[in-house]
Amino acid sequence: MTDSGQVWQLLRDQVTSREAARCPLAGALGRVLREDVAAAEDQPAFDRSAVDGFAILSADSSDSFRIVGEIRAGDWQPAELRRGETLRMGTGGAIPSAGTEVIMLEDAVEQAGTVRFLRRGGEYIRRRGEDAKQGDVIVRGGTTLTDGSIALLASVGCVVPRVTRTLQARHIATGNEIIDPSASPLPGQIRDANSSLVASWALQNRLALHQSRVGESAEELRAAIDGDDDLLLISGGASVGRYDFTDEVLREAGFSLLVSKINARPGKPLIIARRGEQWAFGLPGNPLSHFVCLHVFVAAALAAMEGAAARPALLQAAVLAAVPGNPRETWWPAALEPSGLRPLRWKSSGDITSLAHARALLRVPSSGLAAGGAVEFIRTA
Amino acid sequence: MTDSGQVWQLLRDQVTSREAARCPLAGALGRVLREDVAAAEDQPAFDRSAVDGFAILSADSSDSFRIVGEIRAGDWQPAELRRGETLRMGTGGAIPSAGTEVIMLEDAVEQAGTVRFLRRGGEYIRRRGEDAKQGDVIVRGGTTLTDGSIALLASVGCVVPRVTRTLQARHIATGNEIIDPSASPLPGQIRDANSSLVASWALQNRLALHQSRVGESAEELRAAIDGDDDLLLISGGASVGRYDFTDEVLREAGFSLLVSKINARPGKPLIIARRGEQWAFGLPGNPLSHFVCLHVFVAAALAAMEGAAARPALLQAAVLAAVPGNPRETWWPAALEPSGLRPLRWKSSGDITSLAHARALLRVPSSGLAAGGAVEFIRTA
Repeated sequence: MTDSGQVWQLLRDQVTSREAARCPLAGALGRVLREDVAAAEDQPAFDRSAVDGFAILSADSSDSFRIVGEIRAGDWQPAELRRGETLRMGTGGAIPSAGTEVIMLEDAVEQAGTVRFLRRGGEYIRRRGEDAKQGDVIVRGGTTLTDGSIALLASVGCVVPRVTRTLQARHIATGNEIIDPSASPLPGQIRDANSSLVASWALQNRLALHQSRVGESAEELRAAIDGDDDLLLISGGASVGRYDFTDEVLREAGFSLLVSKINARPGKPLIIARRGEQWAFGLPGNPLSHFVCLHVFVAAALAAMEGAAARPALLQAAVLAAVPGNPRETWWPAALEPSGLRPLRWKSSGDITSLAHARALLRVPSSGLAAGGAVEFIRTA
Repeated sequence: MTDSGQVWQLLRDQVTSREAARCPLAGALGRVLREDVAAAEDQPAFDRSAVDGFAILSADSSDSFRIVGEIRAGDWQPAELRRGETLRMGTGGAIPSAGTEVIMLEDAVEQAGTVRFLRRGGEYIRRRGEDAKQGDVIVRGGTTLTDGSIALLASVGCVVPRVTRTLQARHIATGNEIIDPSASPLPGQIRDANSSLVASWALQNRLALHQSRVGESAEELRAAIDGDDDLLLISGGASVGRYDFTDEVLREAGFSLLVSKINARPGKPLIIARRGEQWAFGLPGNPLSHFVCLHVFVAAALAAMEGAAARPALLQAAVLAAVPGNPRETWWPAALEPSGLRPLRWKSSGDITSLAHARALLRVPSSGLAAGGAVEFIRTA
């Protein structure tokens, strides 16, 4: 049986990144940048006033200054200031010449076209290139684009960055017992929660997703495994019983089975298979097992397909209550609280009420966790 | 001047939640649930086998059992088992009667229609109602819906939950110096990064956003402040100089100014104004000030409009390097690392290269932070 670290290693080693394509900034949120982007000019591109105020020569010790003009943001008026002269400056205005000092408006007293200063000597100029030099790489390939990094790309004129193309995924929910969530279950039936889970998870990960629901017939599953999707997710049918045909059908369809059971819970009967560049995951039927397998394992395959530098990230925080150990490593649902992570009530992989509040999965070693100790975790929201 | 805590308090006290409407689960990700949702039936709704295996009477101590039938998930076959009889069980299959024990397939040896067991006494039955009882509230109003909570709603048949309606926002970028990011700046000009930042931030927060760019003419700004958007965001024009007309225009348009400066940086000249249920934010021109004001303050207004129980959440983690103090509280950009938060290089509010890696904003008190200590932070991605 493969443990979590081995699954990640396998995916890192074998999953290939997909093609990149140019994408307008407006559609780039959450995508992975696939080129290094450099500053087009020095940042800032010119010495700029950091405040509203007045510019004078640094060496000018006059008591009072005559206001001879004004430079607002967007103006470009290189000028030689003379002794006793000052220019009104707007925040972001270009400094007119070297050897200039800027004084804040709050430290100035104006009277009839002249101004006196209460204080001098502050540093209210943002110098050309102080944030970045022309040609410096400011966003590296492999970065998952956030609102902030998108702003940075805009600031250097990179308006159609190269990012990983949209990944295509197919989800097939199997099982005779599942019915549409809008239907009323007959005795023995349960509502299909996994399809909604996968759909929302895929949306969050910007996948183009095709979903279908088949029974427990291998024929239906076989017919559904079709096309050249990057990712194939099959819900249910991943245990050891007679009707667990996911592995069989995948083999017949030309997939190689790489993992058929993991040394972790929930989600132990996870199947991972590969056909060329396509990856299939057979997800154990319980919604919590799905939640764990999607966020811990499938997310790692996605990150590799996207060429992301690092995801899912294992972070560390304090755990606010003890968690019992188990022979197998456990991914335990937890809520985020200001001072750390609160393990949620959870007994078996069928328990799903913890999903209401789960924002993280704690990686619980076989020895368990003591309250207040550090725990590794993966963020799920 | 108002400090961060006072701004949050003001917004919590005065911002009203918007109407709710029913929304299909497929569109509910990230929205705020506005009703308590209860379990439609006991969860699980019937005693279920947790494994693939065999069912026998608990009190039956026979050596060997005759296989008399089979119950798969989705089947419903209440049956009286008799001494010496067993039923093949699929995972999720309904337990045929009370007083039944399930034995894992792995502990069974089959031969010619009979089976012997290597081990007995495990607890492989998920009991009716063990996760939740019919009528128990399983997702509370005020919850921001995640993939997991959406799965939970599906599991109880809540397929069109009541959530807060889409919020309408308008963004107006002011400033003579800003040009479209696709254009080449002339001397003194800079590319408009704020519009891309606001657009991505709004997308992340599921706002319906209308954007425009005006110069520094009050007339243009006046014309743009129009309609009944929930939220009005105005970039630039929020300092103390002669061309800072945001406050004037807002007043003329019937807004009351509630905050005109905050005791925090970057973002000190933040304007917050209100007209009935509409809220306007005048955001200081630098992208990093925008980033801070959007994630720390505007997000709090949004959370209140959405009726969210708690957002933006202040969390705690270890800071991996010292951060200098400043008379004003500082929101310092930081990267997420496995063992804590890494403060990014940042000198002035005009420095934006930190936006490439910022995933959190550290709340730095005036005394600064020591390396390794705990810090409050807000997640930005």
